[in-house]
Amino acid sequence: MFKHVTLIGLGLIGSSLAHAVKRRNLAERITGYDVSENVRKRAAEIELAAISSDPGDAVKDADLVILCSPVGSYKELAAAIAPHLKSGAILSDVGSVKSAVIRDVAPFLPKGVHFLPAHPIAGTEQSGPDAGFASLFDHRWCIITPPAGADAGALAKLRQFWEACGSQVEVMDPAHHDLVLAMTSHVPHLIAYNIVGTAHDLEKVTEGEVIKFSAGGFRDFTRIAASDPIMWRDVFLNNREAVLEVLGRFNEDLSLLQRAVRDGNGDALLELFTRTRAIRRSIIEAKQA
Amino acid sequence: MFKHVTLIGLGLIGSSLAHAVKRRNLAERITGYDVSENVRKRAAEIELAAISSDPGDAVKDADLVILCSPVGSYKELAAAIAPHLKSGAILSDVGSVKSAVIRDVAPFLPKGVHFLPAHPIAGTEQSGPDAGFASLFDHRWCIITPPAGADAGALAKLRQFWEACGSQVEVMDPAHHDLVLAMTSHVPHLIAYNIVGTAHDLEKVTEGEVIKFSAGGFRDFTRIAASDPIMWRDVFLNNREAVLEVLGRFNEDLSLLQRAVRDGNGDALLELFTRTRAIRRSIIEAKQA
Repeated sequence: MFKHVTLIGLGLIGSSLAHAVKRRNLAERITGYDVSENVRKRAAEIELAAISSDPGDAVKDADLVILCSPVGSYKELAAAIAPHLKSGAILSDVGSVKSAVIRDVAPFLPKGVHFLPAHPIAGTEQSGPDAGFASLFDHRWCIITPPAGADAGALAKLRQFWEACGSQVEVMDPAHHDLVLAMTSHVPHLIAYNIVGTAHDLEKVTEGEVIKFSAGGFRDFTRIAASDPIMWRDVFLNNREAVLEVLGRFNEDLSLLQRAVRDGNGDALLELFTRTRAIRRSIIEAKQA
Repeated sequence: MFKHVTLIGLGLIGSSLAHAVKRRNLAERITGYDVSENVRKRAAEIELAAISSDPGDAVKDADLVILCSPVGSYKELAAAIAPHLKSGAILSDVGSVKSAVIRDVAPFLPKGVHFLPAHPIAGTEQSGPDAGFASLFDHRWCIITPPAGADAGALAKLRQFWEACGSQVEVMDPAHHDLVLAMTSHVPHLIAYNIVGTAHDLEKVTEGEVIKFSAGGFRDFTRIAASDPIMWRDVFLNNREAVLEVLGRFNEDLSLLQRAVRDGNGDALLELFTRTRAIRRSIIEAKQA
């Protein structure tokens, strides 16, 4: 499908992409770069890709370049790779925010490079080049957010690439993506990080008790709150407006729920708890559970 | 271990207990009762236990009676079964709150019945008599909260019973149990129900989008928010003080986190996100993941 794919960043998503590309033989060559020397060394050991120690060198001759590092690193990377991108190449990414990515990357790009930001909705709480696996994207959605005037041929090619990696593809406006993901991913992570922090700080309940009795629901939050800290810091620094909007709604709803608990309003509690059950059923039916 | 065990309530926990008792042959007879005729019929079909249609009849001659229905039903059940409990019998339960259970049940009990409330920290989001399985309690904790002056021999016997069901046992003060569980189970459930409700109500993001893109974190909350609505209504109606105390701390922490997002305070975000990761590691090490 491509002659030469370059992956910038070899954590969970970058290494999974390397495996997914190999699984279906989607490229003749895969080049990998990571800012961390340890990650580059490990990626070379496990033969993830041909490893380069310079991002500019890594993208030379590549038909498809995918940024797979935390979104806070994109601006500097874009400046470093832009002069080396070949004309006609597709530059994409896997970042969890999209408006900020366009803001940070687009200004550096030469004419003739097709910039098509994307976001595969897939992941685990694991990080690093050993965490990747080929089936991570199977049956998951990948959202592509083409900037105005994007090349239709390049878009079709990137769509085929993600479909060959196992995903279903949806094309979306960047700002809408950021709002949808604030709801389905960013605020849930913020809430999970927050409640794990609360449990850690609560004086009257020991950490040993929190750990022992975590099977009652808390442990599921700790899994989410074990996600990569730098990646998630960069998400919240780069999707502030949408996160604050959704969080405002969450807080309003929680105030009402808190009042229902205080008032002993069993009908209100039962109504909500019954309604939320239906959404779970829809997710199972959509095979996203 | 017992001649005759009676299970009142044949949902996930009651039916799992029936399977666990059979697995290790912990009783010569198992009797089951449920308020729902459909559940009684289904439980009889799958031969979960000898099914009785009257709670008073069900507990006659039983050495161990365990209430496995939503805690809001306990008061009425206690009144119904108390005259039929045999002297020397142990009456226990599996409810997620303990102070309210003692308040509701203890006044009805005749002398000579050993009342030992308990709470196995185990569950799934499934409900009903078909949801049970024998290994549900394996490696999980069961907390017993004996009232003042409880019989040491009866307590030892109930501890052995839960250990034979696969659990580790901890003895705890009822009020402390309620606070610990508010943190590790009740507030996490309330938060999960709340965020699923927010997603449902948000006008700018369609329900189809929420479902499609739920793999980014949201789907884990929907699993928790699919738990039995009546059981959870009763938890919040019966552990109000502890839930409001923990929720108050959660809200304080969330306000600080919201401000960090608004201010773009990457250091504060990174500090929290790194700290919460360590708790996950402890839970994995404690084999509660």
